[in-house]
Amino acid sequence: MPEIKFQPGPLDLETKGIGAAPAGMAIDAVGQLGWSVLAEDVSLPVAVLRDARIEHNLQWMQTFIERYGVSLAPHGKTTMSPALFRRQIEHGAWGITLATAPQVNAAYRHGVRRVLMANQLVGRGNMAIIADLQRDDTFSFCCCVDSADNVDALGRFFAERGQRLRVLLEYGVAGGRTGVRDEAQELAVREEIARWPQSLSLVGVEVYEGVLKEEAAIRTFLRKVVARTTTIAAAGEFAEPRVLLSGAGSAWFDVVAEEFAGQDVGMPLDVVLRPGCYLTHDVGIYREAETRIQAENPVAREIGRSLLPALQVWANVQSLPEPGRAIIALGKRDAAFDAGLPIPSLHYRPGDAAPVAAPETWAVTAMMDQHAFMSIPHDAPLRVGDMIAFDISHPCLTFDKWRQLLTVDEAYRVTGAVATFF
Amino acid sequence: MPEIKFQPGPLDLETKGIGAAPAGMAIDAVGQLGWSVLAEDVSLPVAVLRDARIEHNLQWMQTFIERYGVSLAPHGKTTMSPALFRRQIEHGAWGITLATAPQVNAAYRHGVRRVLMANQLVGRGNMAIIADLQRDDTFSFCCCVDSADNVDALGRFFAERGQRLRVLLEYGVAGGRTGVRDEAQELAVREEIARWPQSLSLVGVEVYEGVLKEEAAIRTFLRKVVARTTTIAAAGEFAEPRVLLSGAGSAWFDVVAEEFAGQDVGMPLDVVLRPGCYLTHDVGIYREAETRIQAENPVAREIGRSLLPALQVWANVQSLPEPGRAIIALGKRDAAFDAGLPIPSLHYRPGDAAPVAAPETWAVTAMMDQHAFMSIPHDAPLRVGDMIAFDISHPCLTFDKWRQLLTVDEAYRVTGAVATFF
Repeated sequence: MPEIKFQPGPLDLETKGIGAAPAGMAIDAVGQLGWSVLAEDVSLPVAVLRDARIEHNLQWMQTFIERYGVSLAPHGKTTMSPALFRRQIEHGAWGITLATAPQVNAAYRHGVRRVLMANQLVGRGNMAIIADLQRDDTFSFCCCVDSADNVDALGRFFAERGQRLRVLLEYGVAGGRTGVRDEAQELAVREEIARWPQSLSLVGVEVYEGVLKEEAAIRTFLRKVVARTTTIAAAGEFAEPRVLLSGAGSAWFDVVAEEFAGQDVGMPLDVVLRPGCYLTHDVGIYREAETRIQAENPVAREIGRSLLPALQVWANVQSLPEPGRAIIALGKRDAAFDAGLPIPSLHYRPGDAAPVAAPETWAVTAMMDQHAFMSIPHDAPLRVGDMIAFDISHPCLTFDKWRQLLTVDEAYRVTGAVATFF
Repeated sequence: MPEIKFQPGPLDLETKGIGAAPAGMAIDAVGQLGWSVLAEDVSLPVAVLRDARIEHNLQWMQTFIERYGVSLAPHGKTTMSPALFRRQIEHGAWGITLATAPQVNAAYRHGVRRVLMANQLVGRGNMAIIADLQRDDTFSFCCCVDSADNVDALGRFFAERGQRLRVLLEYGVAGGRTGVRDEAQELAVREEIARWPQSLSLVGVEVYEGVLKEEAAIRTFLRKVVARTTTIAAAGEFAEPRVLLSGAGSAWFDVVAEEFAGQDVGMPLDVVLRPGCYLTHDVGIYREAETRIQAENPVAREIGRSLLPALQVWANVQSLPEPGRAIIALGKRDAAFDAGLPIPSLHYRPGDAAPVAAPETWAVTAMMDQHAFMSIPHDAPLRVGDMIAFDISHPCLTFDKWRQLLTVDEAYRVTGAVATFF
């Protein structure tokens, strides 16, 4: 992919998690303001990305991908931050995966020119977005199909526009999400694609294995998909010289790499993996996944160091109204709460030399829109106004609560800011 | 409050839920584009506000408040939309309630000049935001205090700035959220306030009764708070000629009105209620609350008609991969999922004359970041590409997933758009 032409916009002064700044300043000048989270230059709660850990994770995944000889199209829905997309592309990403037409539009407007939409393109409003972007010849796009009705609608729409849409056949699993379940459904989709030779091109096969929870079932599924890809290739139905075969969320990308890399499907094969959460990692669902990867995957073991959690949300102790209970100024609007509540990581009292580890006895027990309830021992050394850094589980649903996040060094001095486009 | 000077900004073309529009157009010109949701002019999912119902709800609450002779400071955290704040103020609101300093900043920048922050002001970054706004003499602000430590920090900070901060003593309940629990804590806060006569003014008492779930307990609590207000008034500790007494979330505002309105606390009294969700209402937690209000409150019964759900999210059927299962292009990033999942309300097939009611047998059973799983009968008349309008539970956590919402007439023709500032 050509270098991303990233145009940083102005710093948004009407949102949360920032300090004092002159009107109209560019977001990429934030690092020059000298803000420090620990010096209370910034309004809490604030979401921070730890520079060194982001860089570590980028390098980790680049090494992993290179070792398997596969391509990486990180799922951009996680961060929806073009400044981070740029860093992913600088670290070897082939393109960016996205989930919806508006996400594709936002990425395109910030310079991304190769997109795999790992989803069906449904509705004329969304088709129109993609058709408008495809008027740019430098823009490469493909999306998934899993039903003849959708293929018919796409074939008709893009024929009307005089355009060609590149599609991936999506394979799914019984009891799962999208994707054809069996060969009968597959055939119906292939036949419908064949009815639109001027406007549709079948360029590959796509899966999302993450709806399965057992490794053996995932491997069986992936092998079936390789076999079906081989069959479709033998039938001569792929419209381009190379076949695209794509899978992998953030939990099973190692297994997908093992199963897809280097397979012989009878045509030149491009394997594209799509993990998105590796960039920031977490201390919840993805740390759990990482533990398995480190235990099982030989390449991950050789790389040695694991991914590091890089996204935190700092918040103040707002009230200590009863023994054993701290009210934190951190709510459901500031951090994901659907796959584990935020976990206290560091405790800092303004003026102290440095943060200290938060005791494991501190635990968030519930959250409201703008508050968290944290249980603490009766003698916990907490004061109203103290600062706590929370690690999180589920980066996707944390990023979308912030229009800007700050990047910080290991002393929580602010090195920059990145905007999101949800 | 003086008329809100609302400055509509440009339409955001990098977010979701919009149609095709020229670059740089003002958001308040959207109604002239002729978009129709049903004609698929708009990318789905889209969040829509039904004009007629919003107007109905605004009038309902204005009537309610006038009948009790109390003031309304709607909680702006619900929508964080200055265009909606303006309509609330045009319908008699005394000011806007907000939860955090960045929210206050966003509201101020869009013209709001009277704010009750129903929360503690904690952390120097947040205090700095408020101090900067208070340099404008036309800006009226107050916030809550519930600890001597916080009062000390506020007294010191605002003394350094040569400013005065107006504070409300917050009363809470055992096992609840913020707020002093008893007279000993209350006295500690009052004594600390008295230490900062140049920089702090005690101007009233505040409660959030919504952490209690039983009406009898709420009434007991509210009566205690009236008694404590009377005691503090008798002690001469309120710094202004009128005392502000504020309570009420969106579930118990009728009970708070009954208990607070017209009370004799020994000084002129301004009762300020703070419901926020009445504006859009919902079909979940607030419909439930409304049922009780309609059954019990004599003024609500006299008004007759109840609040109406005015916020919907339209989404496409993305895939029908198995009998009984529809995958909807609607995720946790598009609608609240913490207090009931979205409820299918209308079904529309593009080209049909009008939407029809969705059968009660259709139900969202789970959601992922960008998808919903909807269970349907095996013979449900659904096709990929069909549109479904979902009613929602919990407007606050739906609004914050949208940077813009469209306003629509009862035929879902787009009449305008409103921006949010989270």
